[in-house]
Amino acid sequence: MERADLILTDISYILTMDENLTEYRDADIAIKDKKIIAIGEGIKNRYYGKTIVCKGKIAIPGLINTHTHAAMTLLRGYGSDNPLKVWLEEYIWPVEGKFVSYDFVKDGTKIAVYEMLRNGITTFVDMYFYENAVADVINEAGIRGVLSTGILDFPTPGAKTPDEGIEKTVSFIKEYSGEYVYPAIGPHAPYTCSPETLKKCMDVAEKYDILFHIHISETEFEVATVKEKYGKTPVEHLDSIGVLNDRVLAAHMVHPTEIEIEILSKRGVKVSHCPESNLKLASGVAPVPEMLKAGVTVSIGTDGTASNDDLDIIGEISTAAKLHKGISKDPTVLNAKEALLMATREGAKAVRMEDRIGSIETGKLADIVLIDATQPHLNPLFDPYTQIVHSSRGSDVDTVIVGGEIKVLNKEVLPLCRDEIMEIAERWKKRITES
Amino acid sequence: MERADLILTDISYILTMDENLTEYRDADIAIKDKKIIAIGEGIKNRYYGKTIVCKGKIAIPGLINTHTHAAMTLLRGYGSDNPLKVWLEEYIWPVEGKFVSYDFVKDGTKIAVYEMLRNGITTFVDMYFYENAVADVINEAGIRGVLSTGILDFPTPGAKTPDEGIEKTVSFIKEYSGEYVYPAIGPHAPYTCSPETLKKCMDVAEKYDILFHIHISETEFEVATVKEKYGKTPVEHLDSIGVLNDRVLAAHMVHPTEIEIEILSKRGVKVSHCPESNLKLASGVAPVPEMLKAGVTVSIGTDGTASNDDLDIIGEISTAAKLHKGISKDPTVLNAKEALLMATREGAKAVRMEDRIGSIETGKLADIVLIDATQPHLNPLFDPYTQIVHSSRGSDVDTVIVGGEIKVLNKEVLPLCRDEIMEIAERWKKRITES
Ligand SMILES: [Zn+2]
Ligand SMILES: [Zn+2]
Repeated sequence: MERADLILTDISYILTMDENLTEYRDADIAIKDKKIIAIGEGIKNRYYGKTIVCKGKIAIPGLINTHTHAAMTLLRGYGSDNPLKVWLEEYIWPVEGKFVSYDFVKDGTKIAVYEMLRNGITTFVDMYFYENAVADVINEAGIRGVLSTGILDFPTPGAKTPDEGIEKTVSFIKEYSGEYVYPAIGPHAPYTCSPETLKKCMDVAEKYDILFHIHISETEFEVATVKEKYGKTPVEHLDSIGVLNDRVLAAHMVHPTEIEIEILSKRGVKVSHCPESNLKLASGVAPVPEMLKAGVTVSIGTDGTASNDDLDIIGEISTAAKLHKGISKDPTVLNAKEALLMATREGAKAVRMEDRIGSIETGKLADIVLIDATQPHLNPLFDPYTQIVHSSRGSDVDTVIVGGEIKVLNKEVLPLCRDEIMEIAERWKKRITES
Repeated sequence: MERADLILTDISYILTMDENLTEYRDADIAIKDKKIIAIGEGIKNRYYGKTIVCKGKIAIPGLINTHTHAAMTLLRGYGSDNPLKVWLEEYIWPVEGKFVSYDFVKDGTKIAVYEMLRNGITTFVDMYFYENAVADVINEAGIRGVLSTGILDFPTPGAKTPDEGIEKTVSFIKEYSGEYVYPAIGPHAPYTCSPETLKKCMDVAEKYDILFHIHISETEFEVATVKEKYGKTPVEHLDSIGVLNDRVLAAHMVHPTEIEIEILSKRGVKVSHCPESNLKLASGVAPVPEMLKAGVTVSIGTDGTASNDDLDIIGEISTAAKLHKGISKDPTVLNAKEALLMATREGAKAVRMEDRIGSIETGKLADIVLIDATQPHLNPLFDPYTQIVHSSRGSDVDTVIVGGEIKVLNKEVLPLCRDEIMEIAERWKKRITES
């Protein structure tokens, strides 16, 4: 018998989401030094150590949320149902202008991280301000974050100029990179960043080998603005200035033309599809089947809770799968395996970490989620992929493991205190509504 | 002090969903003889009796699911992701042909009723076969069902001829009508029922003053078939044979023309919108904003779990609200109050029971749901309607009361045994997969 740090035994289904979509029934996983060291039947007989019996559970890789603004959870559902202009100008921007600070970001991120862990998310991609506050929270909680400061050509709560935002990003890279924090650079969008700013951002991304996280083609307004300014569609514009390559993660991509999809594919740009936010803000429906057909990596994001209004990535792939079947009038589109891939292996590719996360494989980091399949609403269970995508929700996540550490057990979030979260939410609600 | 059977005290928000959308904060509800007898602040000081303290909870009317096939829960997610023809001909129909029986329906309905109660559904509209089995389950569990036997022009598991189906309906009305069972007549659809069958069904509906529950305009195939057969669109065809009036509940209504919407409005036909099923089966998106604008009563349904794959009506209104904002490119469409109305008061209108259920009002039946708002993912809570529709799920339902009786408490379903449900699901899964 060899020693392991953690052994998950008698797991009813292991959906590895590896290249062969290998599955195991009634099998075990052994974990040591933060990594998966063995998977299969009878593994429990070869290792000793702390053990969790997982009868009736489905193991999947830790879920990856490739686009959010965690701190905006303090504005969950705020100003909902208003026209976009009213929502932004009378609700979101005034509150952000008044309150965004280290404390705002720290507190908002705490609520978001609680919810994300509860829902089985083990890695998320963030863009906001005061990312040092985000880093402080995630280092405490132990969830992985790909963190980018939003860089815009006008003053932001984080920086007076885009150059200051870029400088902040560089010092953030040096100070915060670590086990949980993966810095990225976050030029906001092609209509809010000049070609000069975008090129400087790409230089930093190349120099430090990090992700280039940007919003592209979210709204028709954005597309029209870019066309008017540069005479090109957003993707063509970005390509013409040389900032499209395989380290670009493009959030939304709701309105690409056929030519733009070809460019995305050729350049290896990854997409973060945010269907619920795109629907709720009335931006439209991204052509996901077309992008997949063209070979584009499409991952999934919740966007911020101000426009979603949750951080449930299982709910998000359920919406995505149903939506694209309905819109394309083809029920075979985005099958359950493809939908779950968006939230696992394709998510890992989108953040360029497919060598470390996104599937349950020997040698990869032990980021694992166990779903409680012993509940009536998940039965009869004919196909575990279908059940996860179409019948389950984040609330069915029972156990969450990040790098071999147990973060959620029996549906309880361990690293954060629920009462503290509720107190934070209550306090900010008062401040915001009284402002 | 007066005696009450049940007193709910200190409810954080009461969303009555009455005509004025009256709201209460930190108030109480008193219940006697199955009905609500008092609502408001300080009510707890006027009554004594069994008491539940509801701090941190949101009270809403019991949710109404206006279209499902409960027994098909035995086929949850079965054959998912296949083309419609393959799904029906190779998966659903063979299993139904082989297994549908009193026991199949009883067992499938048990799983469905467990899930519906857990998700806050207190009334559902069903169409299937062996509705006596459905009635037996709901009388035992204590959930309201508007139950109709599917009537078709070809032999079904319930009847060899449509006339036999109609006769069965009439004897069902006489034998089963009661506190929980509200019989309806269920001609399947205009393309599967002849004008003669439909007229006979409407005669029974008029004679016994019951609901006429039918699928209309679910798929483009159906519309084309009706047009070819009768030279008219489905709604025009049904109107021309005189079977459209205010006792008609039309499930789906995905493809109505402007003229058809006008007819629906003029005749007082009610619609059961089933967005998730329509998306998943790739039928399309119903023009809900247009129907609402024309004054049509639009309620909400899950359809069967074979094509959804859950019975979560809160998830369903969340999908509906987001979907119609996105499709109409207008974020003000289907606001949170309208969405919640679809699942409450409009649902009650759809089943012609608005005098008894659908809102929290003195004199109405005490069908009440309490949502646990003390969870991080529902906070900060700026607007309770928005939070329910866009941030919560059925899993956030804490307590469910039907006619003053507690059916769910602390998220536990009381009238049905979870272990029995799991055993039933496991047994049928084996029978079905081995067949
Ligand atoms: Zn964003
Ligand atoms: Zn149906």
